[in-house]
Amino acid sequence: MKDGKEMFDICLLGTSGMMPLPKRFLSSALFRFNGNMLLIDCGEATQITLKMLGWGFKNINTICFTHVHADHISGLPGMLLTLSNSGREETLNIIGPVGIKRICENLRAIAPDLTFDINYIEFDQGENQIVIDDFVINTLGVKHGVNTLAYSISIPRKGKFNLEKAEELNIPRTYWHVLQNGEEIDGFTPSMVMGEERKGFKVCYCTDSRPTDELPKFVSDADLFICEGMYGDSEEKQKAIDRKHMMFEEAATIAKEGNVNELWLTHFSPSLTNPQEYINVCKNIFDNTIIGKDRMTKTLKYEED
Amino acid sequence: MKDGKEMFDICLLGTSGMMPLPKRFLSSALFRFNGNMLLIDCGEATQITLKMLGWGFKNINTICFTHVHADHISGLPGMLLTLSNSGREETLNIIGPVGIKRICENLRAIAPDLTFDINYIEFDQGENQIVIDDFVINTLGVKHGVNTLAYSISIPRKGKFNLEKAEELNIPRTYWHVLQNGEEIDGFTPSMVMGEERKGFKVCYCTDSRPTDELPKFVSDADLFICEGMYGDSEEKQKAIDRKHMMFEEAATIAKEGNVNELWLTHFSPSLTNPQEYINVCKNIFDNTIIGKDRMTKTLKYEED
Repeated sequence: MKDGKEMFDICLLGTSGMMPLPKRFLSSALFRFNGNMLLIDCGEATQITLKMLGWGFKNINTICFTHVHADHISGLPGMLLTLSNSGREETLNIIGPVGIKRICENLRAIAPDLTFDINYIEFDQGENQIVIDDFVINTLGVKHGVNTLAYSISIPRKGKFNLEKAEELNIPRTYWHVLQNGEEIDGFTPSMVMGEERKGFKVCYCTDSRPTDELPKFVSDADLFICEGMYGDSEEKQKAIDRKHMMFEEAATIAKEGNVNELWLTHFSPSLTNPQEYINVCKNIFDNTIIGKDRMTKTLKYEED
Repeated sequence: MKDGKEMFDICLLGTSGMMPLPKRFLSSALFRFNGNMLLIDCGEATQITLKMLGWGFKNINTICFTHVHADHISGLPGMLLTLSNSGREETLNIIGPVGIKRICENLRAIAPDLTFDINYIEFDQGENQIVIDDFVINTLGVKHGVNTLAYSISIPRKGKFNLEKAEELNIPRTYWHVLQNGEEIDGFTPSMVMGEERKGFKVCYCTDSRPTDELPKFVSDADLFICEGMYGDSEEKQKAIDRKHMMFEEAATIAKEGNVNELWLTHFSPSLTNPQEYINVCKNIFDNTIIGKDRMTKTLKYEED
């Protein structure tokens, strides 16, 4: 399977919570598959770290917002104008919790004239799903004082095409692609030649929230779970509770319970100058924890067959 | 005169126009005198370059906006929250062209809860003046398609205190400070002992605008004139006219006609990767031209007597 659809790129654009710092941009992540991109959160200066990354702007078809606190959305007007300047004409999807449209339209007071339309999609605090490009986007309401969503970005993988079966059934070669795309043709059905759905990709993202009972199931078996770790020092536990954020150990516990493959921590408090100092707190709970760094990237590839 | 009031610090925080770049923040300037600060413009990521500068946030008592295009104001919500987090309680002054309040209040959709009040001051496109802290702030309407103001930030300097005269007139020493502050006391008046007003400081700032007939007089004899130079290449003249920006040579001409001491260019087009390339265009017109760089600073000091 070499059709350019075998790789899923993820980039953690920034790792700061609350305010952008000279060496730490605000938390957000970019996803790229088959040429299309999806951005989660867009705080002040996200467009700068995006520019540093070099994946371009034009193919960002969807921006998902976790919630409307300024450190997650303050970069939207500038981003919209930069997308406009990049020549975008296709409608941009903006997904977020209930109320996202009103906030975005307020911010558009300084970005009124765009070269594209915006399609707003508001999700409630339950579980919801929408498919855009190849991305299956699931949302789950989490706990942060204001409407907030955790995201799961999955890319399912079809079953394997059974060449021998197709030849045995004398299915004309010109029909094969149609069947691979899941459509019937001339009496032939996909189930005749397609194997069972194979393992695809799943990456989850959660900022900002206290841990919730539903999160482990929501992130279950993810290839990568990107989660906030606002504080590392156990003495700040009460602050985490009061401000509705997570401790490092709490993120690690969700990763363990959800049986994810890898955990990246992000959204560090500005007071947390060296997050690496608390890595062992996580590793004792979930070994494959990585302290996030700006523009850290990962490419997921399909397993053979 | 060594009362801590003899130095006027100016910092060009950024030099980019249109969008922030990894190595060029959006155009804005910070002024500091006697512990108080004044900021002109606050685009996306201005708070990052401010943080790099290290002068702190808390004493920014006034933010002046040239106009409401996103690259000049998109950093406001984040800045307000950062000022809040710095513990500010004093009212913040926001000065701008007519309409500034409506735009700022729209942006405050993501910065609703602040620890301080905002005092909005809207100036029309004529000439206006207000005094805040030690800053005498003059505005002039310029030409950019939307309401736009050029600023002059001056700090006047009193005349010299005539010690011999004060002793000759037998003015009690305890009265001297009162007279120096411009107040009468016990039949003695300031004019008895104070010389003529001496040369103070004057720094002017103009982005974005086409050249106007009034600008040379407005910036006349300034110690420093910070002016936009969106394009350097003469082939882009028509673009400058269409988009209502200035060429390097046009900024230099205003500096020359206004007889300013020094010109700093800023607000470079993202396409202008090496502004230094066009420095001679300016120097042929106005020799003391400097191509602006992020966080370039200057300290003006009173001349002797």
